[in-house]
Amino acid sequence: MPKIPKERLERYLGLKRDFKEERYINLNPIQRGGVLSPEARKALAEFGDGYSTCDWCPPKAARLDAIERPPIAQFMRDLAEFLGMDIARVVTRCREAKFIAFTTLGEPGDYVVVDGLAHYSTYTAIELARLKVKEVPHSGHPEFRVDLNAYADKIEEVKRETGKLPAAVLLTHVDYLYGNLNDAAAVGKICKKYGVPFLLNAAYTAGVMPIDGKKLGADIIVSSGHKSWAASAPTGILALREELADRVLARSKIVGDWSKRKFGLKEYALLGCTVMGAPLISLMASFPHVVERVERWEEEVENARYLVEQLERIEGTRQLGVKPKQHTLTHMESEGIYRASEKHKRRGFFLYEELKRRGIVGVQPGLTKHFKLNPYGLPREKVERVAKAFLEIAKEQGLKVS
Amino acid sequence: MPKIPKERLERYLGLKRDFKEERYINLNPIQRGGVLSPEARKALAEFGDGYSTCDWCPPKAARLDAIERPPIAQFMRDLAEFLGMDIARVVTRCREAKFIAFTTLGEPGDYVVVDGLAHYSTYTAIELARLKVKEVPHSGHPEFRVDLNAYADKIEEVKRETGKLPAAVLLTHVDYLYGNLNDAAAVGKICKKYGVPFLLNAAYTAGVMPIDGKKLGADIIVSSGHKSWAASAPTGILALREELADRVLARSKIVGDWSKRKFGLKEYALLGCTVMGAPLISLMASFPHVVERVERWEEEVENARYLVEQLERIEGTRQLGVKPKQHTLTHMESEGIYRASEKHKRRGFFLYEELKRRGIVGVQPGLTKHFKLNPYGLPREKVERVAKAFLEIAKEQGLKVS
Repeated sequence: MPKIPKERLERYLGLKRDFKEERYINLNPIQRGGVLSPEARKALAEFGDGYSTCDWCPPKAARLDAIERPPIAQFMRDLAEFLGMDIARVVTRCREAKFIAFTTLGEPGDYVVVDGLAHYSTYTAIELARLKVKEVPHSGHPEFRVDLNAYADKIEEVKRETGKLPAAVLLTHVDYLYGNLNDAAAVGKICKKYGVPFLLNAAYTAGVMPIDGKKLGADIIVSSGHKSWAASAPTGILALREELADRVLARSKIVGDWSKRKFGLKEYALLGCTVMGAPLISLMASFPHVVERVERWEEEVENARYLVEQLERIEGTRQLGVKPKQHTLTHMESEGIYRASEKHKRRGFFLYEELKRRGIVGVQPGLTKHFKLNPYGLPREKVERVAKAFLEIAKEQGLKVS
Repeated sequence: MPKIPKERLERYLGLKRDFKEERYINLNPIQRGGVLSPEARKALAEFGDGYSTCDWCPPKAARLDAIERPPIAQFMRDLAEFLGMDIARVVTRCREAKFIAFTTLGEPGDYVVVDGLAHYSTYTAIELARLKVKEVPHSGHPEFRVDLNAYADKIEEVKRETGKLPAAVLLTHVDYLYGNLNDAAAVGKICKKYGVPFLLNAAYTAGVMPIDGKKLGADIIVSSGHKSWAASAPTGILALREELADRVLARSKIVGDWSKRKFGLKEYALLGCTVMGAPLISLMASFPHVVERVERWEEEVENARYLVEQLERIEGTRQLGVKPKQHTLTHMESEGIYRASEKHKRRGFFLYEELKRRGIVGVQPGLTKHFKLNPYGLPREKVERVAKAFLEIAKEQGLKVS
């Protein structure tokens, strides 16, 4: 039996997080929407133990989404309704939701058409499902606007190339690089015309802004609980139209060749149960908070626009992506701060360090020419502190501030 | 935008768990090994927020298992070492670990040879990977002993049928039905002889009893953090031999046809990052506790044997599976309690209700003829209370107790 020395085990005692919400203003673009609500924090402690959701698993329906106590079954229905969809499941990650959709809708070798700004996990989900990718171009620097009309061309291209339609079309509602918001309804219409399932990746939108899947013409909406629903990782959302349930949530058909056992209750692409513990409960506990906060989305966008406006006062600094901002994830390009970094003894790290000294983290260490930030969920007063810190740092480096 | 009525949202406020460890003796077989350590409880609160593990994600290695703060990278190495393996990853569930192994080791249509007592999630993982299953028989009632020598026959059978070896062989180290412990080393030898990768499903063993993958000849060990490592769900362990890393942890090869983007750092079957939050931290925080507790495994087995001995004093009651117990998961068959239930006004539910009245839960409501229980991790005094409760209930129903 291998032995782990005691000194090595001591590293796991008293694990602490440095960047807790109460200590720092954290602008990390992937983290803002995942800050727990106070209710979720309490629920997490309550349901921390292993299979804590399974105390009342109904023996005859034995599946996570059938549990009524805590109200998981009701939550699945409310979640679907909230997104304007028919059916919802909580899976382990948004990327798993995408994989489930691709592998059940496609056969190996089929295509998925995606926007050219899709997240890496969209590509690995396609790869794991043994499918191929066809990208819709974007306009490049500085707007990086996805050419939504080209979805039709790409569907046609797949048809010509393979003799069949793509297994699915994916649009990243808001991309991780520039925070551009795409007109999902436009892609929904194209997909409807071709009869191709339309998957909307709402990892950065559902849970922070209002989404109505019906209006957008989405056949599937996927999202991320830890990114945008004030939930612990790992949690993903898979919401779909009734019509696709037979395929995406298909029941297991495998039969034991000797035992003859079958598992016909289990949704095989979900591998049966998914998030059978604390993160699901955190998602449920935050749901009332999320339902309320999406109504305040415009204020959040206002904060992002304010931040852009302030940062653009710095010499040689501009926001990339479509203007004005329609989402809080913001990408700045700064020739000015970059030039300053070249003369600084800490080089590219100076910006990170100067921000941290002012209680602000989440801008990637080492970056100055391009950096991302996200003020989502911060009170206005903190957003102002962030703006002030940037302007101050710029002035200290001798940059002009208009 | 769909509206959820306020009264419905109120159900998600103040979510409470009924069967908390401090209030009940919970015998639920899947829950005993997943009760959090006090350290894990603290760590959970600390790392509750969404992507809480990602504050220090190294930009150039951008992967969960590369993070040094908190010490995730070190934990992966310690975890592998503890299991007598070379490399470890934490994935979302044991079933996902199985799926990752099957889909990377097999091509659609290939076989996996499994024991006839394998868990349903083994079958759905095979199904999702588009593979086929071949089962090794067990001896049936009352011992349900898996015929380990038949693994060789089944490998031969696959070879005859398909002209190639199975993609993998799986043995359930301890099964979920009878808690029988299998001699993994015997199957390891057979697999080595044939050159077939040997996957040991240690969901019920690693984390509660000592496991040395090297000694057992395992090429892959999978386990479940929420089942046996005092961690929150969902957490799975995937540990493997160096030789298989190129296949099981293969890097992404997909390329964007227009953008030419590649994601060569990402382990595609894991979909990149996996458990990027609280449950991983709970697993790490419990690790010193787990390393220590596996040394006390014999005491735990003693408690299970004691419980069996006491319950078998009840008329018409016996333990199923191999005797004496070598694991704490216990399956009882009781003609006596069943006959009593037929005369009881609450029928099959009386056992559950009588136990609950005595502060004991986790025996499935409605069952009397066959029921499972698991005293793992309970102090001896509580195990004695459980035994006493059963004997008392039996006597009250007029059953003979020897």
